[in-house]
Amino acid sequence: MRIGFIGLGNMGGPMAANLLKAGYDVTVFDLSASAVQNLVGQGAKSVASPAEVARADVEVILTMLPAAQHVKQVYLGDDGLLANVQPGVLLIDSSTIDPHSAREVAAAARAHGNPMLDAPVSGGTAGAAAGTLTFMVGGEQADFERAKPALAAMGKNIVHCGAAGNGQVAKVANNMLLGISMIGVAEAMSLGVKLGMDAEVLAGIINTSSGRCWSSEVNNPLTGAPSQRGYSGGFGTDLMLKDLGLAAEAARQVRQPVLLGALAQQLYQAFSAQGNGQLDFSAIVRFYQEQS
Amino acid sequence: MRIGFIGLGNMGGPMAANLLKAGYDVTVFDLSASAVQNLVGQGAKSVASPAEVARADVEVILTMLPAAQHVKQVYLGDDGLLANVQPGVLLIDSSTIDPHSAREVAAAARAHGNPMLDAPVSGGTAGAAAGTLTFMVGGEQADFERAKPALAAMGKNIVHCGAAGNGQVAKVANNMLLGISMIGVAEAMSLGVKLGMDAEVLAGIINTSSGRCWSSEVNNPLTGAPSQRGYSGGFGTDLMLKDLGLAAEAARQVRQPVLLGALAQQLYQAFSAQGNGQLDFSAIVRFYQEQS
Amino acid sequence: MRIGFIGLGNMGGPMAANLLKAGYDVTVFDLSASAVQNLVGQGAKSVASPAEVARADVEVILTMLPAAQHVKQVYLGDDGLLANVQPGVLLIDSSTIDPHSAREVAAAARAHGNPMLDAPVSGGTAGAAAGTLTFMVGGEQADFERAKPALAAMGKNIVHCGAAGNGQVAKVANNMLLGISMIGVAEAMSLGVKLGMDAEVLAGIINTSSGRCWSSEVNNPLTGAPSQRGYSGGFGTDLMLKDLGLAAEAARQVRQPVLLGALAQQLYQAFSAQGNGQLDFSAIVRFYQEQS
Amino acid sequence: MRIGFIGLGNMGGPMAANLLKAGYDVTVFDLSASAVQNLVGQGAKSVASPAEVARADVEVILTMLPAAQHVKQVYLGDDGLLANVQPGVLLIDSSTIDPHSAREVAAAARAHGNPMLDAPVSGGTAGAAAGTLTFMVGGEQADFERAKPALAAMGKNIVHCGAAGNGQVAKVANNMLLGISMIGVAEAMSLGVKLGMDAEVLAGIINTSSGRCWSSEVNNPLTGAPSQRGYSGGFGTDLMLKDLGLAAEAARQVRQPVLLGALAQQLYQAFSAQGNGQLDFSAIVRFYQEQS
Repeated sequence: MRIGFIGLGNMGGPMAANLLKAGYDVTVFDLSASAVQNLVGQGAKSVASPAEVARADVEVILTMLPAAQHVKQVYLGDDGLLANVQPGVLLIDSSTIDPHSAREVAAAARAHGNPMLDAPVSGGTAGAAAGTLTFMVGGEQADFERAKPALAAMGKNIVHCGAAGNGQVAKVANNMLLGISMIGVAEAMSLGVKLGMDAEVLAGIINTSSGRCWSSEVNNPLTGAPSQRGYSGGFGTDLMLKDLGLAAEAARQVRQPVLLGALAQQLYQAFSAQGNGQLDFSAIVRFYQEQS
Repeated sequence: MRIGFIGLGNMGGPMAANLLKAGYDVTVFDLSASAVQNLVGQGAKSVASPAEVARADVEVILTMLPAAQHVKQVYLGDDGLLANVQPGVLLIDSSTIDPHSAREVAAAARAHGNPMLDAPVSGGTAGAAAGTLTFMVGGEQADFERAKPALAAMGKNIVHCGAAGNGQVAKVANNMLLGISMIGVAEAMSLGVKLGMDAEVLAGIINTSSGRCWSSEVNNPLTGAPSQRGYSGGFGTDLMLKDLGLAAEAARQVRQPVLLGALAQQLYQAFSAQGNGQLDFSAIVRFYQEQS
Repeated sequence: MRIGFIGLGNMGGPMAANLLKAGYDVTVFDLSASAVQNLVGQGAKSVASPAEVARADVEVILTMLPAAQHVKQVYLGDDGLLANVQPGVLLIDSSTIDPHSAREVAAAARAHGNPMLDAPVSGGTAGAAAGTLTFMVGGEQADFERAKPALAAMGKNIVHCGAAGNGQVAKVANNMLLGISMIGVAEAMSLGVKLGMDAEVLAGIINTSSGRCWSSEVNNPLTGAPSQRGYSGGFGTDLMLKDLGLAAEAARQVRQPVLLGALAQQLYQAFSAQGNGQLDFSAIVRFYQEQS
Repeated sequence: MRIGFIGLGNMGGPMAANLLKAGYDVTVFDLSASAVQNLVGQGAKSVASPAEVARADVEVILTMLPAAQHVKQVYLGDDGLLANVQPGVLLIDSSTIDPHSAREVAAAARAHGNPMLDAPVSGGTAGAAAGTLTFMVGGEQADFERAKPALAAMGKNIVHCGAAGNGQVAKVANNMLLGISMIGVAEAMSLGVKLGMDAEVLAGIINTSSGRCWSSEVNNPLTGAPSQRGYSGGFGTDLMLKDLGLAAEAARQVRQPVLLGALAQQLYQAFSAQGNGQLDFSAIVRFYQEQS
């Protein structure tokens, strides 16, 4: 299968590399020449613009871009994908953007005769490199089945979430809950320790009780791996902040109250403004600790 | 082993019954004659006051009372347990109260020559009846070992949390996190459904992703068992509200900020004030649903 | 002075009427024929599109539109104002929109040779009818002076807030604070009454103390005018919700945390979802009252 | 009139001094010998315990103590005021404590034949020195009238708030609103400045608009007096934190939700934990400013 790939950043680069490793014929584009060169060195062809990707002989085009504005530009721009692609080519956007924009682009693609899937991922740069990403996919069942082999070359958990946009809905809902849970764990652990408990003992009890969650078990802000390495690496505070912003904006558009979600967003905003945007998002526990 | 048991309510009643079933000699007291009668019918002896429990020939006294004021009265009152009990008798309080009060009573007991454990439980009335409670125990290791067989007759998970008061700390920290998580799940599920996803599909995705928690897996507010029966039974809103109040007050005393914890408390307070105090605490999802 | 006026809704209609009363020559456009007819009956000329307003012989064009998307369409659309207006005509947008969009449109106008002011108002439909609005104006000082006489025909408080967009900044900052204060007053008054105080006595004390604010003095949720008429009329909940949404989004764009602002937005969202969107925004106090 | 005065701290000291200046015969007690000596130097008599104050020939006893526990001890303790005072002596407690405790003590006093008023103050140490405090008084109208002349020697605004405890209710409600308003102003001012406005211009606009409040006009966190002197002096963060804690606890007892109030408490708690407890409470604006 011949695949076009646009967006070779921290996530897109290793994802495209995994497609090459799986034997796909991959034609790439990125604004960064070195990113392109890196993939070419692994066997990719390169072209000079999204339009050329669209006009290349590909069956699928996959995009991995920073935000909705870039997705709209690449797909809907005057010399963008839809202006140049043959009908029938399957379009897959793995960017994390708001569901409303995802549906807008998917509708334009459909109107142009192109099936489209939104397929945001979780798993971070480590998962992208290891090919163990989770793909949350919105769109038609048949298109999902068609995309699945290629996605399986980049991830190990490929989930169909329903109609167009629902991949983004699943991601935004899950990550809003993740942000809330992480702050909840930070508060519960900080409170327990301040009241005299040992952090490991408390984590052990929570993890066998009704408070247990991914943030207490896998990424505990006081006892987990990121805390042992000064909160470097991992899922960055500013990425969590971006996802909470998408959740809050999506909620506003459909007039859905999200009180804890909005407060989590603001707390991560404050924490980022204090210079912590690059730390793993479990570092929010520092907000709850006294200044020494 | 001869055990005194004070407080035969919804929790204490079945707990005492399980002690009887396990072959313990149990002497009970409660203000309610019918609650006492019920246990006598199962083989308990009864006496007329806490003081008489203290003066009975028991090795252990266990209490299960509604709030800190009752615990203080029963233990520290003019004709209370400490005024009447022989030194050496092991005292176990399974009430859920604030850690500060638990430590105050434990210190008084120790001063009187009585080892004391705080041993609040989770698992609800169903767990009390089935003998599957979790006991979170604070106090000396040797006292914990001494109490363990009796506690094991009433629960299946007996956890030592450290020094006196730490049982309460563990419970208050876990349940604060539980309240936050539940509201987080209610918000995430409501947002996803409002944005067009199927609740079961969304729950499935969250439960294999980083948003997963006890509240999404076991007691999901849209797809879990309580939601299928109109939110009757279960862990009541007013009990969650009580625990969040204990957490907030404990946090205030040690000057620990708990932003999401405090907001969760207020949301449960508002929800209770609207007449929902008896519903399972997952019913908070109704707060997030439009009025039809 | 000849003025073009686009947008004759609940606010724009009476504003245009006040310009006519003050003797201005006013050329109007609105999608609603009846709204246009109403102004024509008061002496306005009417044209068939924004483009025709732009091509009419006017010195100033004033717009009063629901949201940023409408403003962008009217100003920047293919057959919009900038595509048709003569350089030098002063453009004034009195819509309430986000500062970022306001600055974007103003920059486009400037590039076309048209000075532009953002001039959102406060004072509601009553102020629009009475000609007592407050105008918060962003743009060049000279343009502000040029616009002042016309604005003074519609309002009594015409304030220059600095460069382009600052009118919107002032409005969004003020109204976010207003939303927070109103909920604060609702909480303080509800708490005082629940603790046994008379609402009038408490309002009197707050209004001579450090808690006093516009929301306690002029629009007190328990003792103010809207509360006496069932919260009909006034500044509607959904308008407050819109402004809080603009504030939260503007804050997100500049990475400024606004914790109480975001929570106020969510509370008004929940209150609106419960069917109260048309009530005066002081009705939020009902959220704090027990269900009878 | 002969007055007993217990509690000569930062507030009580200057208050007792003002009674002396007004010609009252004042008998004082405090644990601090130097505080007592200071008042004796201004003409006070001193005694060695609260009990001796009660047994001295006084018509009124006024207390000014740090917290409810001290009030209960001084009034209800084994050798406290009620155990020693003659019936008929008017008792006035100017401490800021929770309404519930105030009512408990007042009921005990009444049962002993002593009329009692709760009379917490606002105005800070500057108002105490200048004799310009506001007294919020709960209790019988006749007792209020009897106390008024003495209170007027220490304050300029003496307000009757209704029955016993209502002085505390008024203070707690007002100060919770004050804490919310201050944070609201901090957010609105920070947002406006971040979006490009001048702080003085923004403050000017808010102060003539619907966002205006004591915190924007008198104590503006960016333009007010405390901000000009590094936030030293004024109404301290830890005092605001104490009052917000009283409000939250009073709300919990009567099951009244206070969402913004609880969040304000937690924000002040976090700000205090970061080492800012002694700063004027308007310094909370620093939480909203980026770390340089």
